[in-house]
Amino acid sequence: MSVLVAGTTALDSIKTSTKENPRLLGGSASHAAVAASFFSPVNLVGGVGEDFPKKYLTLYRKHGIDLAGLQMLPGKTFHWSGEYEVNMNNRRTLLTELGVIETFSPVLPKAYQTSPFVLLGNIAPALQHRVLDQMKQPKFVVADSMDLWLNIALPDLLRLLPRIDGFVLNDSEAHQLTKEDNVFNALKKIHKLGPKYVIIKKGSHGSILSSPKGFFICPAYPLSAVEDPTGAGDSFVGGVMGYLATARGSIDANIRRAMVYGSVTASFCCEGFGLNRTTKTKRADIEKRVKELEKLTKF
Amino acid sequence: MSVLVAGTTALDSIKTSTKENPRLLGGSASHAAVAASFFSPVNLVGGVGEDFPKKYLTLYRKHGIDLAGLQMLPGKTFHWSGEYEVNMNNRRTLLTELGVIETFSPVLPKAYQTSPFVLLGNIAPALQHRVLDQMKQPKFVVADSMDLWLNIALPDLLRLLPRIDGFVLNDSEAHQLTKEDNVFNALKKIHKLGPKYVIIKKGSHGSILSSPKGFFICPAYPLSAVEDPTGAGDSFVGGVMGYLATARGSIDANIRRAMVYGSVTASFCCEGFGLNRTTKTKRADIEKRVKELEKLTKF
Repeated sequence: MSVLVAGTTALDSIKTSTKENPRLLGGSASHAAVAASFFSPVNLVGGVGEDFPKKYLTLYRKHGIDLAGLQMLPGKTFHWSGEYEVNMNNRRTLLTELGVIETFSPVLPKAYQTSPFVLLGNIAPALQHRVLDQMKQPKFVVADSMDLWLNIALPDLLRLLPRIDGFVLNDSEAHQLTKEDNVFNALKKIHKLGPKYVIIKKGSHGSILSSPKGFFICPAYPLSAVEDPTGAGDSFVGGVMGYLATARGSIDANIRRAMVYGSVTASFCCEGFGLNRTTKTKRADIEKRVKELEKLTKF
Repeated sequence: MSVLVAGTTALDSIKTSTKENPRLLGGSASHAAVAASFFSPVNLVGGVGEDFPKKYLTLYRKHGIDLAGLQMLPGKTFHWSGEYEVNMNNRRTLLTELGVIETFSPVLPKAYQTSPFVLLGNIAPALQHRVLDQMKQPKFVVADSMDLWLNIALPDLLRLLPRIDGFVLNDSEAHQLTKEDNVFNALKKIHKLGPKYVIIKKGSHGSILSSPKGFFICPAYPLSAVEDPTGAGDSFVGGVMGYLATARGSIDANIRRAMVYGSVTASFCCEGFGLNRTTKTKRADIEKRVKELEKLTKF
């Protein structure tokens, strides 16, 4: 089955303590779509400007990503520039040029409207609503978010939560949303806001699922070198949704394994700037790391 | 087989945002010994002053802990007082009264010197050396430490590391010792300092083992209420060593499971002040949580 992936399609200029890479392909939808494409057909929803490099369109196509929902708009592509500290845990935004994203309104091609799996990647909650408004009885809808929307668009986000099946956020966002220090108490409070499935991302510490079948503690793949963590969270949820879209059986039967596949897909993302490493990854590489994670967690 | 547990035997006065508990039984050896006692016979090495409450001796004995190596010394028992922040992640020391610990020198009863498993709990590395000097061909020696010794007794600690089989420390201490931000690179560097087995504790994020058989990612038991995390690390390593001492087969065959047992024992420690919850725990309670952790991590 196919996954619809909506979110930002951007150019990212990323600085770390040792390297600088200007105008890489980035954005939540780009990372999530490429991650999901390892497992299932992907319908991309986004908007880019006239400066969007053709090579990035070629890259999407190489991953079999359907671009009928990618709008080519007058103006400049959304451009984000950020810098990581030495330990890779903290980053600061140097520049945000919204460009076409400022007036972007997602319009779904008819063929997209019946995608059974819907990933509302990180973008303004109002746009996530607009995507969802156009969908016809999706089977499983998951939304990602970020601290920015908790700060400036909380009412929109709170209206979104009862409309989705799954919500993905990181531990500091969970704390910000619920005022709970304890992650398990935060999870309980988030369920009350709507979603039946809540995943809290903890970076190199893995992630935690809370679902109708209880908790799952998902490991992160051990990496001794992180080149650029930008997009790791998007890759994670992209991998989760891609895996779920092709797995047989219920969500409950597959979501744990889907998270492990998401975790591994995110590990490749961290090993290169932007999508550089992810796009060199083969499905067999992913399977190998999933098997390794099985061994690393067995007791 | 028996475990020798050396370390501090102390009185802890602990404040959290909601409660205050003065002069509880504390210290690295107390927590580790009680934790180990769920699995194996324990020989305790420590020193207490004339003010040490009799009820705590009774408590040790109730756990079958051999006290022949607990010295009753003239003066006051080591007393630590600390306060936790609301989120339980940060604590500050309010008061440290060394008392008898200042001049304490461990003397091992003859029967202790052949204990096959030796846990050098958190105490000055010079004293850890002194314990080890008195041991006769132990099978497996593990040491714990803390940031204080990295700051004021690093040469002693560096001399200890080649003498032990296993070293346990937390992630910030691993960073302090190796200057490595990445935990897997830190592990490599710590192996070069001596120990074949290195465990990095990450609190509520679990722990990581690096061993001749590779890495193991050990989960933490999910707790929605942490009353007092003091001694959780000591309880963890106490549980690990207690489990190893009674398990059949090689260290490599048992150490992963031992860590899960240690993790669960530590979870009980966090649920009460001092040793209040741990001492109410039964072996069956531990087995129940180990089974739960198996389910929580399966994929």
